[in-house]
Amino acid sequence: MRIEAGFFPQFGINSSLQSLSPVNEEEKAVLPHEELAQNYRLACLARLTGDVLVYVPEESRGAEQVILASGAKRPVKLKPAVAGYHVTLENRVLGDLRGDWEYLKEALVNQKMLATEVKPDYHVLTKIAPIIRQENGRVTAWVWQDKEVIEVQPGFQEELYGVAVDVGTTTLAAYLCNLRTGEVAATASLMNPQVRYGEDVLARIAYADTGKESLAGLNQTIIEGINQTISRLTDKTGLLPLQVADLTLVFNTAMHHLALNLDPRFLGRAPFLPVVKESLDLKARDLGIHIAGGAWVHVLPVEAGFVGADNMAVIIAEEVYRSPVTKLIIDIGTNGEIVLGNRDFIASTSCATGPALEGAQIAFGMRAAEGAIERVRIDSRSLAVDFKVIGSNDWFSRSRQRNAKGICGSGIIDAVAELVRCHIILENGRFNKELATKRLRQNPNSKWEFVLAWAWETAIKQEIVITQKDIRAVQLAKAALYTGAKYLMQKFAVDEPDEIILAGAFGTYIDPVKALILGMIPDCSPERIKAVGNAAGDGARLALLSTEKRLEAEEIAKKVIFIETSLEKDFQKNFTQAITFPHAIDRFPHLEELLAPTDSAGGDNVLRGGNNKICL
Amino acid sequence: MRIEAGFFPQFGINSSLQSLSPVNEEEKAVLPHEELAQNYRLACLARLTGDVLVYVPEESRGAEQVILASGAKRPVKLKPAVAGYHVTLENRVLGDLRGDWEYLKEALVNQKMLATEVKPDYHVLTKIAPIIRQENGRVTAWVWQDKEVIEVQPGFQEELYGVAVDVGTTTLAAYLCNLRTGEVAATASLMNPQVRYGEDVLARIAYADTGKESLAGLNQTIIEGINQTISRLTDKTGLLPLQVADLTLVFNTAMHHLALNLDPRFLGRAPFLPVVKESLDLKARDLGIHIAGGAWVHVLPVEAGFVGADNMAVIIAEEVYRSPVTKLIIDIGTNGEIVLGNRDFIASTSCATGPALEGAQIAFGMRAAEGAIERVRIDSRSLAVDFKVIGSNDWFSRSRQRNAKGICGSGIIDAVAELVRCHIILENGRFNKELATKRLRQNPNSKWEFVLAWAWETAIKQEIVITQKDIRAVQLAKAALYTGAKYLMQKFAVDEPDEIILAGAFGTYIDPVKALILGMIPDCSPERIKAVGNAAGDGARLALLSTEKRLEAEEIAKKVIFIETSLEKDFQKNFTQAITFPHAIDRFPHLEELLAPTDSAGGDNVLRGGNNKICL
Repeated sequence: MRIEAGFFPQFGINSSLQSLSPVNEEEKAVLPHEELAQNYRLACLARLTGDVLVYVPEESRGAEQVILASGAKRPVKLKPAVAGYHVTLENRVLGDLRGDWEYLKEALVNQKMLATEVKPDYHVLTKIAPIIRQENGRVTAWVWQDKEVIEVQPGFQEELYGVAVDVGTTTLAAYLCNLRTGEVAATASLMNPQVRYGEDVLARIAYADTGKESLAGLNQTIIEGINQTISRLTDKTGLLPLQVADLTLVFNTAMHHLALNLDPRFLGRAPFLPVVKESLDLKARDLGIHIAGGAWVHVLPVEAGFVGADNMAVIIAEEVYRSPVTKLIIDIGTNGEIVLGNRDFIASTSCATGPALEGAQIAFGMRAAEGAIERVRIDSRSLAVDFKVIGSNDWFSRSRQRNAKGICGSGIIDAVAELVRCHIILENGRFNKELATKRLRQNPNSKWEFVLAWAWETAIKQEIVITQKDIRAVQLAKAALYTGAKYLMQKFAVDEPDEIILAGAFGTYIDPVKALILGMIPDCSPERIKAVGNAAGDGARLALLSTEKRLEAEEIAKKVIFIETSLEKDFQKNFTQAITFPHAIDRFPHLEELLAPTDSAGGDNVLRGGNNKICL
Repeated sequence: MRIEAGFFPQFGINSSLQSLSPVNEEEKAVLPHEELAQNYRLACLARLTGDVLVYVPEESRGAEQVILASGAKRPVKLKPAVAGYHVTLENRVLGDLRGDWEYLKEALVNQKMLATEVKPDYHVLTKIAPIIRQENGRVTAWVWQDKEVIEVQPGFQEELYGVAVDVGTTTLAAYLCNLRTGEVAATASLMNPQVRYGEDVLARIAYADTGKESLAGLNQTIIEGINQTISRLTDKTGLLPLQVADLTLVFNTAMHHLALNLDPRFLGRAPFLPVVKESLDLKARDLGIHIAGGAWVHVLPVEAGFVGADNMAVIIAEEVYRSPVTKLIIDIGTNGEIVLGNRDFIASTSCATGPALEGAQIAFGMRAAEGAIERVRIDSRSLAVDFKVIGSNDWFSRSRQRNAKGICGSGIIDAVAELVRCHIILENGRFNKELATKRLRQNPNSKWEFVLAWAWETAIKQEIVITQKDIRAVQLAKAALYTGAKYLMQKFAVDEPDEIILAGAFGTYIDPVKALILGMIPDCSPERIKAVGNAAGDGARLALLSTEKRLEAEEIAKKVIFIETSLEKDFQKNFTQAITFPHAIDRFPHLEELLAPTDSAGGDNVLRGGNNKICL
């Protein structure tokens, strides 16, 4: 673990190196000099005497978060921005005094019909000379948009890969794609290392305003995260990051600014203006991203201050602008984004959901990795609890595997929905203290909590509980999503959308019925609700595979109508109303029938809410 | 002075820090820690006990080399690549949610009629937000080629400057130009800091081949030199390097490769192929050049392995391709370049001249700064010598100012031509030892030398002499130029060119008659010979001021016929013949009349050969 010293208003703690026992000889022997200098400590040896902010290095966090390549089939015509051309440079005749670049260029023009205007990236010029003199003049040239040669390699190289990254507030989700086939070769995820600067984007924007170095630090942190994610993908496939020919990035507008090192100050105050909205093609090297020397990074357009390129990615993934029926898309993340539209109009808004639905800032929250409770079922009569843990093949009642360590995002949603359904929590969100069950109890600080798993049922030898505070966080999140969706529907006179689509990088396997029970989404017949997984990541992948998709995004971004819901009148009133849990039974008489039986719920095709909690 | 340790084959010495007295307390007190670590020593305190290579820091070298803005008037229609636009961003109306960049872009499109395709450089995005919010929305945008905004500044800024640099093998000559008026605001020069790696480009190419770090070191050295030159220009005018909006570079092909960090190995061996010939627009930041954040560097096209962008600059400066008469241009530098042509054809060649005509590798050679003998006159009967020194208003015989310290390039040419004219040296270049003059003498090593200035006539209190070796260096240089010029003329059946143009960054005020006496140029009537100064620098300036000139260069570069003279048969024989000094009197019966009298020769409008000798 690494100690971060200083005052952290977002966590309300003053972290001091003095709050730990001094570094002892054993730690000195084990930790490299460099890590000691960065305040790394061994969690098994350092003793705590006061508040400290602890950062658990990604590599010490056990299993990688579960990420599903795609929750929906999305056919696309392959037309990546980078093409790999194989050309053969014939032996030079006597008196042929062309430069090396001109020699290659003419081969590309003559053999591959490229326009004579094709230019070399500077990086290519610095390496071309020895390369064209190997392999009997066989050369592979990567050409971007048929305009610029961004890389040259000796011989005929078949590999041509690109990476799409969805840079979330809490988590990065990345896809390595074969640009010749469109296949996903590997996926990887990483906690957004900026989390140490604040859990939500407003905290980070505020931090960026504390000095010039602050923004630079935030930027460097996320760029390192992107580089690390790319390395993970290439490690999994035996490639090198330098073999990545193209990169697409999507993110909310705040992460867009922080990742591109753009001044986020004016994004943080009304009217929330971004520095740039249009799509961008930037040199990876200008951003500090280590892929092929001359490679570009395509940044999808943002729509508004809090509706970002990730939402644009969702729109091109779902192709709302081609849909004859009206879709309501709810993209769940730390910053929730909502789209309503069809081929005639598209409107969007955003809402501050908080990280609860991703499993963060929850008492026993954890990332969606092995040991996380992902599904919960409560018997409405006996109030007996059963749960399913990532890494187990079956429900606890049958497997008896004591491997539960905490709860991930989908587990929290499941649990709270079950607590509501069984009336263990009341309409106002408080525990029904009159219930006769030992699972509902007060902790030593007199705070009420509900025991999901007894100590003997877990791997951590202590009870895993849901606290009143956890429920409050879920209430705020679901109310934000509901209010936003309702606003859009009212504004565009949509009584009931034809389809509700639940998307999200990680907070994503949400049982539609549970979402209805919670009142997270507008009432709707459950069969019209579809969970599509990480649609933003899918959009980033589509933009990686098809320049036509990039053009679509650029065109559509100009047409999306952005609604700033927080500026609408009645917002606060409606939000407050939405915080309650309406009686689901009243709204859905056949609710029990709709709920999946425990023996079929929770399959492999599930995306689980993650937790990136980092605070001791 | 800084000591460079190691074996330097180009100087035939093994330089060792042990060859100097140890650093004493006084030096420790005076020299900053950082400089001591870089082997800086005080020349007044360090005692020499063996061979060392000493580098005299540019700032310790006294007066800056003399550089004339232009030796020729060259009208050009102003059309620089960068335009400075003043736009006013009106107050936003409520609901205007455009991004900062879109807000500026639309102002540029609406107020300045730029195309909607105009793009922002990445650097502009990182700084635009606060800038457009100052000065009541008044913004200055620098736009490159009407395509890309490379810089934004608050308010209406009038300054718009660019820099043109002629990167010579021995010297960098640079011009700061006002892009609104075309005027030269400042000039600066610098010894090419790569000289420490070898006096000529072949030595440097060989050095580059000694390892990957070697090329990087060479590159870094010249980039630092370019940055230093730019700082000098901006220091002189109260600007900052970051206020330089555009840069053009010209150089011979080897310096082109070393400055752009391109592999020069294949340039150093037949058939001398460059990495790239076409003109290039590269981001200054990619090259490590510190000017405006988003600025481009325009690199003129090269013609062949040893005929570079500098020669292309000479061609666009002289507009050979528009000339009805046939011009022979002799561009004197460490690498000489020769052009023959008119509007129907242009041919070029290059020849290894060596640095002698720039005053380097000459016993008493020095840069063309205060104290350099720049003109010499010898009385053919008495053999009395008179000379003119930079910094004196008159010849020594009248001024009696004892300020001579050495000889610069033009002084050497003058001196050798006078020695030839007065038969002090014979046709074969050897001293005529039978002459009765105490100026001709043997030094303690029995080497013959001729005294130009007696010890009491100088500032250095010792005789300034011309040695047999100096004469040899001049012979090799002039023979190379003559043979190259003759070859082109024979090849294209030109008996006598209509004009001979003498150009060169520093080896430049060459009295045409002296050039004829030496046999440096083909015989020709003296009035047809014109000295134009640094035509390559002029071409770089013209390309800075006019994108049309850039296009001309690109077009013409493809049409220039390059002749590799060293591959022609008879080359060695002709070169050997050209080494001699033909009797000038036989060729020009009225020679004495043609020579300018001492009281009129040497005015202000003179460019002097420089000396960049760095070896003790």
